[in-house]
Amino acid sequence: MDVVEFTPTRDQYAFTFGGVAPVRRIQPGTVLRLWAEDAYGGVLQTTNDRPSEKLTMPFVNPQTGPFHVEGAEPGDTLVLHFAELTPARDWAASTTIPFFGGLTSTDRTVTLQDPLPERTWIYQLDRDRGTVTFAAQSSGHELELPIAPMLGTVGVAPAAFEARSSLVPDKFGGNMDTPEMRAGATCYLGVNVEGALFSVGDGHYRQGEGEACGTAVEGAMNVTLVVELIKGRAPVWPRIENDTHIASVGSSRPLEDAWRAAQTDLVLWLGELYALDRLDAYQLLTQVAEAPLANVCDANYSSVVKVAKNLLPGGEAYDGVHAHLRDLATTIQSA
Amino acid sequence: MDVVEFTPTRDQYAFTFGGVAPVRRIQPGTVLRLWAEDAYGGVLQTTNDRPSEKLTMPFVNPQTGPFHVEGAEPGDTLVLHFAELTPARDWAASTTIPFFGGLTSTDRTVTLQDPLPERTWIYQLDRDRGTVTFAAQSSGHELELPIAPMLGTVGVAPAAFEARSSLVPDKFGGNMDTPEMRAGATCYLGVNVEGALFSVGDGHYRQGEGEACGTAVEGAMNVTLVVELIKGRAPVWPRIENDTHIASVGSSRPLEDAWRAAQTDLVLWLGELYALDRLDAYQLLTQVAEAPLANVCDANYSSVVKVAKNLLPGGEAYDGVHAHLRDLATTIQSA
Amino acid sequence: MDVVEFTPTRDQYAFTFGGVAPVRRIQPGTVLRLWAEDAYGGVLQTTNDRPSEKLTMPFVNPQTGPFHVEGAEPGDTLVLHFAELTPARDWAASTTIPFFGGLTSTDRTVTLQDPLPERTWIYQLDRDRGTVTFAAQSSGHELELPIAPMLGTVGVAPAAFEARSSLVPDKFGGNMDTPEMRAGATCYLGVNVEGALFSVGDGHYRQGEGEACGTAVEGAMNVTLVVELIKGRAPVWPRIENDTHIASVGSSRPLEDAWRAAQTDLVLWLGELYALDRLDAYQLLTQVAEAPLANVCDANYSSVVKVAKNLLPGGEAYDGVHAHLRDLATTIQSA
Amino acid sequence: MDVVEFTPTRDQYAFTFGGVAPVRRIQPGTVLRLWAEDAYGGVLQTTNDRPSEKLTMPFVNPQTGPFHVEGAEPGDTLVLHFAELTPARDWAASTTIPFFGGLTSTDRTVTLQDPLPERTWIYQLDRDRGTVTFAAQSSGHELELPIAPMLGTVGVAPAAFEARSSLVPDKFGGNMDTPEMRAGATCYLGVNVEGALFSVGDGHYRQGEGEACGTAVEGAMNVTLVVELIKGRAPVWPRIENDTHIASVGSSRPLEDAWRAAQTDLVLWLGELYALDRLDAYQLLTQVAEAPLANVCDANYSSVVKVAKNLLPGGEAYDGVHAHLRDLATTIQSA
Repeated sequence: MDVVEFTPTRDQYAFTFGGVAPVRRIQPGTVLRLWAEDAYGGVLQTTNDRPSEKLTMPFVNPQTGPFHVEGAEPGDTLVLHFAELTPARDWAASTTIPFFGGLTSTDRTVTLQDPLPERTWIYQLDRDRGTVTFAAQSSGHELELPIAPMLGTVGVAPAAFEARSSLVPDKFGGNMDTPEMRAGATCYLGVNVEGALFSVGDGHYRQGEGEACGTAVEGAMNVTLVVELIKGRAPVWPRIENDTHIASVGSSRPLEDAWRAAQTDLVLWLGELYALDRLDAYQLLTQVAEAPLANVCDANYSSVVKVAKNLLPGGEAYDGVHAHLRDLATTIQSA
Repeated sequence: MDVVEFTPTRDQYAFTFGGVAPVRRIQPGTVLRLWAEDAYGGVLQTTNDRPSEKLTMPFVNPQTGPFHVEGAEPGDTLVLHFAELTPARDWAASTTIPFFGGLTSTDRTVTLQDPLPERTWIYQLDRDRGTVTFAAQSSGHELELPIAPMLGTVGVAPAAFEARSSLVPDKFGGNMDTPEMRAGATCYLGVNVEGALFSVGDGHYRQGEGEACGTAVEGAMNVTLVVELIKGRAPVWPRIENDTHIASVGSSRPLEDAWRAAQTDLVLWLGELYALDRLDAYQLLTQVAEAPLANVCDANYSSVVKVAKNLLPGGEAYDGVHAHLRDLATTIQSA
Repeated sequence: MDVVEFTPTRDQYAFTFGGVAPVRRIQPGTVLRLWAEDAYGGVLQTTNDRPSEKLTMPFVNPQTGPFHVEGAEPGDTLVLHFAELTPARDWAASTTIPFFGGLTSTDRTVTLQDPLPERTWIYQLDRDRGTVTFAAQSSGHELELPIAPMLGTVGVAPAAFEARSSLVPDKFGGNMDTPEMRAGATCYLGVNVEGALFSVGDGHYRQGEGEACGTAVEGAMNVTLVVELIKGRAPVWPRIENDTHIASVGSSRPLEDAWRAAQTDLVLWLGELYALDRLDAYQLLTQVAEAPLANVCDANYSSVVKVAKNLLPGGEAYDGVHAHLRDLATTIQSA
Repeated sequence: MDVVEFTPTRDQYAFTFGGVAPVRRIQPGTVLRLWAEDAYGGVLQTTNDRPSEKLTMPFVNPQTGPFHVEGAEPGDTLVLHFAELTPARDWAASTTIPFFGGLTSTDRTVTLQDPLPERTWIYQLDRDRGTVTFAAQSSGHELELPIAPMLGTVGVAPAAFEARSSLVPDKFGGNMDTPEMRAGATCYLGVNVEGALFSVGDGHYRQGEGEACGTAVEGAMNVTLVVELIKGRAPVWPRIENDTHIASVGSSRPLEDAWRAAQTDLVLWLGELYALDRLDAYQLLTQVAEAPLANVCDANYSSVVKVAKNLLPGGEAYDGVHAHLRDLATTIQSA
């Protein structure tokens, strides 16, 4: 089993999916140990650091990659199993950014109002307690919150010769910002170009569903993942599987279209797993779906639809590749 | 403690919130034991019963009520604690209905396509096992699913002299179709007219988040609830509290607007509970919110945003009325 | 030919469509001469009059009516031909209103931002020149604009026992705010309740398409209209015909759904006029449609789709009732 | 004055904005005489040619370009004046395409319904009469329609290292599909990359507003345009000026966001032209705007907001460059 370690230099980050040359070529079956910078490029370090002063567009949400997977062809399914996500720093940051976020007008939902004020919060990590601390700025209120590390951004090069911003998710994945993308999860992505050219980034030590203010508890992350390839069977939208659930992630505007995409994809998936026709699968999913939002701030919004496996005995997705990789990951971690 | 029992006769159902005379006048503190018909009026009983043949618009989603609460005035907060929701029949039904549902064009999202086929599923209830059984029609596949009784529709008379269909939720509540409206939940609704004039209905033995096909496992329900009144403090959008979470429910189109309403209401609520300013509450909620969809099929879509109480030590909503009513409810049930 | 004059007293205005007793019962063929108050109830008279101080919700957008049309039954088509719209005052007003309008967050598209400032503009009418004058408040800039009188609000009682705010348009018509509703236009509305119960109001001396800031050049209006009734043939959405165009008006959220409704209704209409199947009518309309927006501020947005009659030789809508009423109207005016 | 002629070879077309090397480098002031292929690549020639059989994704909507404009830098304003648009063939085509268009579910607004049937219409051009003929397929109905040549697609390379499909418009322009892009129009585009790298394509012999079925009367076009460059002053969204109007074009989802972008851009533009503050410009535009839709089918919808110049005496956009280029164009045409 190949193990590849990669920490990008400052000029090696990617800011798009597509349109970037690969940083490494790897074989299916490779274990990657990566360092992922935070979405701010690490420049917001104190509560006095204003996004409008410190950030330079479009150099935000830097991605680690892309990786060229040998043998991956359009129509194939890239499989990424996240074995370990570990905070790489002892602090993380979150902010309001002018005209960015879910409860403000934006450059997409334009109004004539003034922006919300900028503010930066710094969260201190307590590794032993496994917590970060929210510190209010309008009062002395502090609140300790359990960490729940995840990756906001996972994606492949898009189809149709496109290169797309690392800020806006779509069929190729990207900045979906779902808490489901955590250690123990396996992500399935349809391959659009030779080599798949996937990247990851945007570590969150914790994030609520919706990522309302536009940014999570943003922190650099050490990422261990296993790469696998399934020939053919490309899903239209990213899928995620863990020990308890299968899920689809749609990303679009308006939000109901993101949901429709995910819900439909899962209707198809259930139909395949249980040999149900479209209407039966639609009915069944209607009664068993969970539908936690992912983001409502990233130009394309992301909606997750998932089903608990304990409600669905007997179906096994993608020939059990998730269980296989999860077991494999256990080996790696104990290594 | 007054206990009022009420089972509507066939001509006593309400099909709007507002515009209907009350069926009973009750005091705050009253326990109501109600019978709620299913959304089909009980007429879909076999898999051969087609909605287009059996249902007569607009006589669907019949509501039990309205109840006039003595002393309730505009600006007050109506408190409904659901003590018990028990299936009133041994079967329930679900259907696809032409041009109704989340994965079809509708009379609101019109296309020129043909409708999906109509199909009716009947779910048999096993009271001992606490399950209903999904029976596929395209195959012999059967699946036993745990029941999770809830009320799709809870609301008061709307403001501004309106009378609104029981099918479409809004600020007054109504057909929100959230699984959060289950036994053990307390619902807070802003009062718009003298007496509040609330109704309940639309029993679901089980429903997935999103209610994708437009109908849950629809079944008549025996409902026990306790009515309370808080002077003033009317929330803009319905709120729900249970032992583990506080939640707000927004209902609008497009879906992001439903989410924005709920998310903003919870920002305000958190701000009050913890004396945080708007930005701090926005930041905190961003990192702790859960955002399960309710319905994406009812003309106005409903989005729930909620926070786990264990992340929020020290805040107590509405002076602890939920805990009070929950304890009271235990007494009733054991009676 | 009956001529009925009606000027409401202060307590005779309606603020909903549906839920209100008729002010008059009239026969089809009646000519109505009405006085319609402006949307502010006439209380904004100087640039110092702030909406938030002078207006009392929900007593805005007062309607003149409803009128009960003898013989009108659900499924029939109410025909209203606007013979004359004449400014009833020598001034009109427009405003920004906190959290109301198209370029601000609203109570439906909620954000945490501050509202835009309130401002009131008074437009002086020059009857001889047929103009109103825009006077900037941030400078001495003045601009004379031709008047183009129209009615923002025309509607019938809705279906399904609803009573709906005069602020929000839907299938029943209401506050569509389209400049197409001017003298010379014939409006077709589907009847939902016995007597149709139609009302009109919301005079605009001039309005741009979209009514972006939420209010037009709002002024009281003298309205002369002719009422006719066609048995059956109720359109799903309001239709408008004048000497040069036929049009449909959809009202919904998001805006594309308003457009879809209007576009589809016109596909059906074209199909009937020319005996085209659905696809041919879809194709033809694609190449000949004009699509001016009506309002993007009234909770439900309104989108007009129309076709120039000179592109459509040979089709005659509703057996030529428009031409008949237009000719009749000429007689009235010269009377 | 440089005159550059360019007809692409089959392998010279571009299918994205951005990510493509320039076909020519030109100086500001150059006149371009171009051949633009139709959106189908010319392969739909009879009513038997099915899009699903003849088209190969993503090789649709081929663009002529990109052209590198010497001296153009990010923040500059590219000026394209369309001097002449002349049909390059004697026929044009239009189609329904499965899951593409405004009155069908799509890959963005997914439903479980079957697609609409595919159908291809061929329009014969009569150059002398200046008409194309619609021929119904469900009947013998024919209708002669005046031609109104326009370009569906005009754009520059996008910002942020993106390469974007020629099918989906955005801030960089692209497939806006507005009938305003006709001979006599001047288009202003913000430059994002050195050289601007603009392309044009997607000739329409005629198109209704909204382009409902997804395709206009699609035909190859001979294009004569003049290229100019203004240093700085980049508009956020594409602007169009002709002899009678100034206009802005927003492209987004949902449709109200496209409108908001255009309306806001024009508020800013009016504010500059007349030295009005934001609120005065908002008010003025509210009363004078025209808002014809462009497309409601291209994933991002496009909305035009425009104002008649005769309502706006005294303002001159971009120092009169439009009038200058229009006069220049007259010279070219008579050459």
